[in-house]
Amino acid sequence: MALITLLTDFGLRDEYAGVMKGVIATVNPGARVMDITHGIDPQDVIHGATILAAAYAYFPPGSIHVAVVDPGVGGTRPILAVDCNGHRFVAPDNGLLDRVLMDHSADRAVYVENRRYFLERVSQTFHGRDIFAPVAAHLAAGLPLAELGPAADRSTLVRGVVPHPRPMGRDGLEGQVAAVDRFGNLMSTIRANDIKAMVGRQPEGQVMVEIRGHTIVGMASSYGSVAPMTLLAIIGSRGLLEIALRGGSAQNRLKAGKGDPVRVYLR
Amino acid sequence: MALITLLTDFGLRDEYAGVMKGVIATVNPGARVMDITHGIDPQDVIHGATILAAAYAYFPPGSIHVAVVDPGVGGTRPILAVDCNGHRFVAPDNGLLDRVLMDHSADRAVYVENRRYFLERVSQTFHGRDIFAPVAAHLAAGLPLAELGPAADRSTLVRGVVPHPRPMGRDGLEGQVAAVDRFGNLMSTIRANDIKAMVGRQPEGQVMVEIRGHTIVGMASSYGSVAPMTLLAIIGSRGLLEIALRGGSAQNRLKAGKGDPVRVYLR
Amino acid sequence: MALITLLTDFGLRDEYAGVMKGVIATVNPGARVMDITHGIDPQDVIHGATILAAAYAYFPPGSIHVAVVDPGVGGTRPILAVDCNGHRFVAPDNGLLDRVLMDHSADRAVYVENRRYFLERVSQTFHGRDIFAPVAAHLAAGLPLAELGPAADRSTLVRGVVPHPRPMGRDGLEGQVAAVDRFGNLMSTIRANDIKAMVGRQPEGQVMVEIRGHTIVGMASSYGSVAPMTLLAIIGSRGLLEIALRGGSAQNRLKAGKGDPVRVYLR
Repeated sequence: MALITLLTDFGLRDEYAGVMKGVIATVNPGARVMDITHGIDPQDVIHGATILAAAYAYFPPGSIHVAVVDPGVGGTRPILAVDCNGHRFVAPDNGLLDRVLMDHSADRAVYVENRRYFLERVSQTFHGRDIFAPVAAHLAAGLPLAELGPAADRSTLVRGVVPHPRPMGRDGLEGQVAAVDRFGNLMSTIRANDIKAMVGRQPEGQVMVEIRGHTIVGMASSYGSVAPMTLLAIIGSRGLLEIALRGGSAQNRLKAGKGDPVRVYLR
Repeated sequence: MALITLLTDFGLRDEYAGVMKGVIATVNPGARVMDITHGIDPQDVIHGATILAAAYAYFPPGSIHVAVVDPGVGGTRPILAVDCNGHRFVAPDNGLLDRVLMDHSADRAVYVENRRYFLERVSQTFHGRDIFAPVAAHLAAGLPLAELGPAADRSTLVRGVVPHPRPMGRDGLEGQVAAVDRFGNLMSTIRANDIKAMVGRQPEGQVMVEIRGHTIVGMASSYGSVAPMTLLAIIGSRGLLEIALRGGSAQNRLKAGKGDPVRVYLR
Repeated sequence: MALITLLTDFGLRDEYAGVMKGVIATVNPGARVMDITHGIDPQDVIHGATILAAAYAYFPPGSIHVAVVDPGVGGTRPILAVDCNGHRFVAPDNGLLDRVLMDHSADRAVYVENRRYFLERVSQTFHGRDIFAPVAAHLAAGLPLAELGPAADRSTLVRGVVPHPRPMGRDGLEGQVAAVDRFGNLMSTIRANDIKAMVGRQPEGQVMVEIRGHTIVGMASSYGSVAPMTLLAIIGSRGLLEIALRGGSAQNRLKAGKGDPVRVYLR
């Protein structure tokens, strides 16, 4: 049976994530559920999109990824079920799949509208429990995607939520901090490939990274490759440019946060 | 095999919740365990009782719900095992089941006293590990309730911990904030049914909600049905009156917290 | 199939713990995984070593405990797989197993070096995902320990990370606060056995505990055995001397934290 994963901004203080698992177990007693995280910053679709894309491919092919960061719950935003890169996603159509779809285009997408697969009573405030969870449980039991609702035109899905890095002259790139992790590492919107493409044009050049008035020269190969309490720029485990402080918190050192510009250039 | 759920105030920083699962797996290797939450505010029985009642019915009938918010651990408070509404509960007799029993009366209740089903060494500080977990594991394996200890007189269980809303004149009701969720939504002790009963007497009336000197006119149907950064009153996903701020935190806006009075009246 | 447990300092905000489970499920679809905790203080090996030793024996014999508190990731520190006390451990060789090995010596130890059991691409920043998780998944599927790499000389493993309590005169002992739990209880490095040995020499003596200028007379048998808001010293559920405040936080009352000296003496 397909594995179901959960990624939400519900946190773990409240019963929200637990109740979603209860609904899944009620609809489909054999379903297996794993948490990616419930720690997405409240209503932060960019954060959610970034983490979802970093995580999903480490789960078994065919997994069903339920992603709920949904400021528009109870409004008119549609809910999507999407096949992409051998995985399946159920998420609001609000850009939460933006980063996943940046790397691989969708194979199929439908609007989740068939109330037959929802809980009988659907609240206006907790679709995670009333729609997302039971729909995922049915999908894990083998329900075909097309049963959920009409096909969605893939060209009209909400996109562009995670800002693309923009060029600064010929040999520069500006992105931003997309998320901060528990260790105070700053994860940017700039991908390893973006930097490779830039370096490829001038392979003898030296990469410089600028953030909050600090310049970091060169890319580190590991946290331990610089002196203690030194800032470093590194391609982190997500394939993104990250700024870290060895043995400390780059967030605190730089007083940096989400949205801060991160610039990479060659010299 | 029956599902076991856990609801505690142990948090997830420490190993307490993990160790409970270890004990369950040791006693009953086939048992399935799901967390409702470990984020109940430390020793806050009202919070625990509110969340337990909001969550349990979303798990499969026959589930065994282990609830540990237990300031009296190591003292003389008894431990209960209770059948109610097709579910089973194991909890200290300190009011943690108050809200569950408000809606459905207990079918059976016993005192958990048979040390044969405890860990061999019982500490005075961690009954979650030494009593609750192994007892639940045995129940999930089919142990009859009566094996655990003598029948409890259901009329003497600790009740009244979650304060009932009290009438204010003919068309008013005063409850209080019972919990605050991750988003800063304020969950009250007032149930949808309490409001329905009031409105039923004067159906053309307008519901007003008062909290911390602010008056909210009318009940919202969803978070999105009011303007951004506006306060709203809504029947939340738990069937309770909740006060929220669209796109923000009602807790911060109102500087409100647990115990603050919430008044509903008709005009 | 052997159970896999996880103990890390990754927290639950980020996707790190979830992704480890995804890798395990991909390598070994039948593996069962349980969290001990992901709340070890960032890079705090003493904290991790203390919690791991307190927790592991409550899981079924033969369990595979994956422990990742790993400030040296990407550097030269080896990774160990160790059999000890009927359980198996996979951890960096940085002292994280110190407390486990204090009570039971290792039966076997190998260096985890065989890249055949790693993910194909190994990052320099997230060995939890790229090495620890797949190795544990293979072990749970029955891979012999010796397949992972060369035998490690057990006498050269990193030890001494958790400081042993040191004698103060004939009838005194000085340890320190090793961790603080969610309730503000202060867990020391002093074990029940250390105190028993001291008391055994002078059984009529009275135990005194000193911390931050406060003296606590006698050991409590439970939290409830002292008056509300009173400090108490107790052998906690981990078999360690803990300092607690009934109904409150000893951490806040004493303004105490990790590393603060804790003295026990007889009078």
